[in-house]
This record gives sequence, C-alpha cells and structure tokens, in this order.
Amino acid sequence: MGLVVQKYGGSSVADAEGIKRVAKRIVEAKKNGHQVVVVVSAMGDTTDELIDLAEQVSPMPPGREMDMLLTAGERISMALLAMAIKNLGHEAQSFTGSQAGVITDSSHGKARIIDVTPGRIRTAVDEGNIAIVAGFQGVSQEKKDITTLGRGGSDTTAVALAAALDAEVCEIYTDVDGVFTADPRVVKKARKIDHIGYEDMLELASSGSKVLLHRCVEYARRYDIPIHVRSSFSGLQGTWVGRTQGNEAMEQALISGVAHDTSEAKITVVGVPDKPGEAAAIFRAIAGAEVNIDMVVQNVSAASTGLTDISFTLPKSEGRKAIDALEKLKATVAFESLRYDDQIAKISLVGAGMKTNPGVTATFFEALSRANVNIELISTSEIRISVVTRADDVNEAVRAVHTAFGLDSDSDEAVVYGGTGR
Amino acid sequence: MGLVVQKYGGSSVADAEGIKRVAKRIVEAKKNGHQVVVVVSAMGDTTDELIDLAEQVSPMPPGREMDMLLTAGERISMALLAMAIKNLGHEAQSFTGSQAGVITDSSHGKARIIDVTPGRIRTAVDEGNIAIVAGFQGVSQEKKDITTLGRGGSDTTAVALAAALDAEVCEIYTDVDGVFTADPRVVKKARKIDHIGYEDMLELASSGSKVLLHRCVEYARRYDIPIHVRSSFSGLQGTWVGRTQGNEAMEQALISGVAHDTSEAKITVVGVPDKPGEAAAIFRAIAGAEVNIDMVVQNVSAASTGLTDISFTLPKSEGRKAIDALEKLKATVAFESLRYDDQIAKISLVGAGMKTNPGVTATFFEALSRANVNIELISTSEIRISVVTRADDVNEAVRAVHTAFGLDSDSDEAVVYGGTGR
Repeated sequence: MGLVVQKYGGSSVADAEGIKRVAKRIVEAKKNGHQVVVVVSAMGDTTDELIDLAEQVSPMPPGREMDMLLTAGERISMALLAMAIKNLGHEAQSFTGSQAGVITDSSHGKARIIDVTPGRIRTAVDEGNIAIVAGFQGVSQEKKDITTLGRGGSDTTAVALAAALDAEVCEIYTDVDGVFTADPRVVKKARKIDHIGYEDMLELASSGSKVLLHRCVEYARRYDIPIHVRSSFSGLQGTWVGRTQGNEAMEQALISGVAHDTSEAKITVVGVPDKPGEAAAIFRAIAGAEVNIDMVVQNVSAASTGLTDISFTLPKSEGRKAIDALEKLKATVAFESLRYDDQIAKISLVGAGMKTNPGVTATFFEALSRANVNIELISTSEIRISVVTRADDVNEAVRAVHTAFGLDSDSDEAVVYGGTGR
Repeated sequence: MGLVVQKYGGSSVADAEGIKRVAKRIVEAKKNGHQVVVVVSAMGDTTDELIDLAEQVSPMPPGREMDMLLTAGERISMALLAMAIKNLGHEAQSFTGSQAGVITDSSHGKARIIDVTPGRIRTAVDEGNIAIVAGFQGVSQEKKDITTLGRGGSDTTAVALAAALDAEVCEIYTDVDGVFTADPRVVKKARKIDHIGYEDMLELASSGSKVLLHRCVEYARRYDIPIHVRSSFSGLQGTWVGRTQGNEAMEQALISGVAHDTSEAKITVVGVPDKPGEAAAIFRAIAGAEVNIDMVVQNVSAASTGLTDISFTLPKSEGRKAIDALEKLKATVAFESLRYDDQIAKISLVGAGMKTNPGVTATFFEALSRANVNIELISTSEIRISVVTRADDVNEAVRAVHTAFGLDSDSDEAVVYGGTGR
C-alpha cells in the first residue's frame, strides 16, 4: 500500500480530546499499512485569537509579521498531534511549511505555491515516521520569509504535498460527512454525493459550496490527485472527487447538486451611453481597484435614449472599493447613477452535459417560477446555470430546484436528461 | 554609535500594553542613533499554557515535539513586537532562532549554542530595520530540528547575538532595577550594585541570585560583552556587569553582596567505611544518575569506628533520583544509612580578594553567631564563602551578614578589608 495524505481542520483539533481522537485515526491508517503524511490546521479559534492580539498592537499589521504571528497556530497543533501519536506508540515528527519544502511567492497573507520539495518528509516516512505538516504556511523563494497561503490554505497544502509525494489519495477530514447535493442546513433531504468530477466540484466551489475551496480542487485536477472528503467524527465513506469516467459524462446531463451563495452584492450602473468603450472603461476601473467580479449582465439598450444599464455581482466585502472606483469614473463616463444592492442570493445548478440538454434550463426556471421566486440575473457555463434572486427567497429556491431535479433523498431516481437513466 | 542588543523577558511583554511600552523603549534606542537588535521571550504565561496543553495529550512528550511546541511562544511575541514598532513609524522584522543563525547541539529542551551566524540579522539592521529575534530557541546543527536552550535561554541568546554582532552592550531588561547586594524582599536596606565583575556575578548567580543566570554571565565573560541589567519599567541605570578594573580588585576585599538559596536539600550518607574508594564510589553513583551536587563535606573519621559521614547538597528536585541511586549502591558500599533534609538554606557572601583577607571570614561567622544562626556546612572559593543553615534562619542570617559588611543603604561606607577604603 502506498502513501496517503490526510488533512484535519481546526474544528477537528479544537482541544486536547480532539487531538487525541485524530491521533487514533491517523494511527489506524498507519496500522493498515499506509505511509501517512498529515496536514493540520491551527486549533479551533487560535487564528482568530492571534488576529485579535495583532489588532491590539497595530491597526495595520505588516503582512510579513502577520504571517510570522499566524503560523504559530499550526506549530502548536502539529507538535501536540505528534506527541499524541507518539503516546499511542507510533513514531511521529512535525514539520513547519518551510521544513516540508512548501516554497511560495512573497505575497504575504495570500501566497501562491511555486514548488514543493518534500525531501525531509519523504525521509521521515521512509524511516517509519508519521509526518505531521503545518498547513496554510510556506517560505518565500526569494527572501526566505515565512508566508501564509490565505483562505483554504491547509487544504491546498495537503493536495500540493499529495502531488509532490505521488500519494494514492488526499483525504480531507472535516466536520461534515462529505459534499452534498445542497446545503443540508437548507435542504433536509440533501444527499451525500459519492463521486464527483473535478469540474463539477470546481463549479460547486465557485457557487457557494464551502466544503472544498476552488483553489484546492484546481490544484488536485492539475496533478490528478483524488480527494476524499470525509468526516473526522465518523468512519463513513465521504465524497470522492476525481476524474470523471468517460462514458458517464458524455451525452447525459448528470446533475451534481445545487449550491447557493449569499455573500455577494449587486452593483448596477444606470444609464450608461451605449457606445463602444464605455463598458470597457467601467470594468477597467473595477479591475484597477482589484475587485473580483462574478456575474455580469448588460441590458438591451433602449433605442429611444441610447442608454443601457450594466449590472454585476461581487463579494460584499469589496462593495465599498468598487463604488469608490466607479464614483471616480464619473468624470469620464457619463452614466446616470449607481445602485448598490446587498440583499441578493445566487443559486446555481451544477452538472455535466447541461448546455446540450435544453430541458435542464427549462426545468430549472419552471421550478423557480412555481416557487414564486423572481429571477434578476442569469449566467450559464458548460456545466452550471446560476441565477440571482432576492436573499429572502434563497432557501425556498434551493429546495424547489433540489426537488425538481430529483435530488431529494427519498426520490426513487434522479431526473436525467438526454440519456437512458443513471 | 554602534549596535546594542536588548533583551525583554516575558513579564515585560505580558500583554498588548506591555508590548507597546517595550516598542516605545526600543524606538528610543533607535532614535538615539543605535543599530538595535532585540531578543524577546514568550508573553507572560504562554510557555506554561503550552506545557499544560502538552500534558493533556501526552504524559511523556518527546523533546523534539516539545521544542516545536514551545517555540510558538516567542514567535507570537516577536511578531507582535515588530508590528507595534512598525506602528510607531519604524521598520522592524522578526526572526526565529533558526533564521537568526543560532546553531545548537541536538539536546532538546537544554540545547547548547555551538555557533551563531547572524547574516540575516546583520543585513536587516544594515538596511535600517530593528531586528526582533526569538529568544530561547535555535536549530540543531546535525538534523536541522528546532531546539530550545532551557532555563535562562533568552538571556543567553541575547549575549550570544551580542558577541556574534560585536555589540557595544547587551541590555537585559527585567522587572527589577538591577542586581542588589541582597534580595530586596529579604533585606529592605539592600543596595543596587552599579558595577560588578563577571566573576562576582557568576558566584552570585551560583549562590541563588536569580537576576542573571550563570550560563549567560559565563558566555558574556568568555566574549567580554558588557551586560547592563535594568528595569523595563523605569528609565534608571541598572547594574553593569563587566571586566573588573585592575587596581580595584588587587589587594582589597570588596564585598559585592549576599545571596541566599532555599532550593537545595542536603543528603548525608552515614557510617561510610573510611577507606580509599568508598567516597569515590558514592559520587560516581550520584554522577551516574546525572544529579548535580553543590557543596560537599566529609567529616573527620572517628578513630574508634573507622567510619565517617559524607554530606552534600543538591537541588531538591533531584533528591529522589539521588536517594534511589544511593539505595542501589548499598550492595557494594557498606554505609549505615541515608538522611535526607530539605529544610536547609545556603547563605553566600561574594566579593573579590576574600581568601587573602582572613578578617572577612571572621566577620561573617561572628555576624551569624550574634544572630544565633547555627552553621551546618561551610565551603569557600577564591571570592565566595557559603554556609548551610536551617531554612527558618535564612532571612535573619542574610540581614545580619548584610549589615555586618556595611552593605545597608544607610551605612556611610562599606567595610573594606586589607585596603585603604573604597
């Protein structure tokens, strides 16, 4: 048997009991004959507590020092985990991101992995140790400064190590049983997905599913590392994310799930002169402010006025920056006004082969209509349809779509378009 | 002006307010034109909290992982201190022991410094930064594992960096105003010492004075680094520890101070056959158990029995180990019994030129006698006389000796032997 990489999040190692429980699970994998490399996050609220301390000494902590500070969190959890494993009679050694060879660029707080040179990890496991690696952190190639990878960093560390060590699988342990067809807090009848392709998982992650982040799935797809998302509290099989099998995905529309996202806001630029270059100027201004936008819609121009409206969605947290950038633009682009709306939700249906199966779109819209949910924006990709609705309607909308596509756990069979059944 | 190394202990950086106060003091030194390198300990009780966590997951935490865990403490304080300095408008960068080039042996928990290669620190200060370095920690030469230096480690880091960077002075900031002629909690009239030689400071440190540890003073003496011990709460001059000026120390007895120590216990091996090799066997057994002994006295053998008693003192914490080792020895050395006594105190008078001035010893014993303090053991060195008394008598004894040698702060002049006045 080969090498497995396991990743445990902060909620799994929140206290001494959690650490001991995780240690037992790790030792099981080792007893089963695997070489085991473990990536661990900081314990529970440690990171928040450290951020709080930083705010007490400085309103604008420099990125280099913030990274030095925050990386203390994983240092604590990984050392404790190694101790707990040793106490179960197995050899374990902990390694910082730097010691594990996680080389990054110098963007403190959101560093990108450039290379992984896991020589010490390989040696440690070849000598019979369980290697415990700090997630979320690395060392910059140029200045040898400590860096952090930003949101979802520990998952990305795990996948990157799995790729560099040619692991059989990267197991992501979390506090839920896997990836579901919808958020189980909203849809009681949501079903756990057993297998999902990288592409569908990427779309779900972009559309508000929080189990895995886009970045980690993207990395796994590039290096073809199977991810197994599962609960650290149960022994159950979770969700396998991997390459889709050829025949399954070809001609049928196979719905993976329904995701929703209430973290976005909508900005409408009203009364933009409908001539070449105006829209470009608007989006150049937004890009200049380093705001990431998501969905974009330009209304059909009213012939009588020659004016049009442009709407787009963006993270609420970047709303202020975007509005400021657009206000400054008013001198050069003669739009009429700006509207900012943060009471929106995005509902997305994700599945392969969707675009070539028009029935999918029809079913989707009919379901929303029957639930009296009004649609404000629409965007589609090869394997996703997303709509923007009022935030108040989101739970109703998700449930309606989930049921319409036969995803409810008491449905006999999923609805399949253009094929002969699942 | 040159480079200064400043060291701040855990009580000086116990919370955000403390960190901001220390940051201001550091910036003052920088404004005065110095290059500044700061060594910092973990905040207040952090180390104890981490040890507590370790005990919750493992009764016997491996040393490598314990060091990984504990070094998180300085990582937090040094990053916060760099942020606080930056917030005052000065550039600061923090460095781990490893990044600062503190190379040690592989003895986890009590590593010895082998070499200091402070290239990154030199570059940082030459570029105008204040460099903040984690005290207490290093990296092992052989395996590149994180190590800790044990008790007094941060002071040693500071002196070692001062030596490697050829600093003007190593300032040790603490919560007292300097080194005193006796413990001010015991002797109200104790005086702050302005200047003291390395040798006297070493004897004080070995005799129970807790302001500076022996190890750090020894390092400073070897590299001739002046140490300035001072309060981080006041702006006062503290105590300078350095080379003694030739003429001062030559023929006079100059008393530096009175130290006391209640952390030791006394073991008496009763009825040892007074023949060659028996005492050696006893001390070989003690050494084999890795127990450090301090004072040793062998009684004059009683001619009638051919038996003698051997007494020695040792840290109370090692009492159990020593007794176990001696019990095992009973098969080969025919002593009668063992006595263990942890109700003792050691009182030491430290000063240069003492041995050649018999009046010193006489005054010392007379003072104890007048105070009705009984003497159980005596040992002397070139610059120290130590006696063991009952623990209950310690405060009375220290005060009596302090007064007898004219050290009280309201004395007109110190008593000086064999010279022409101070």
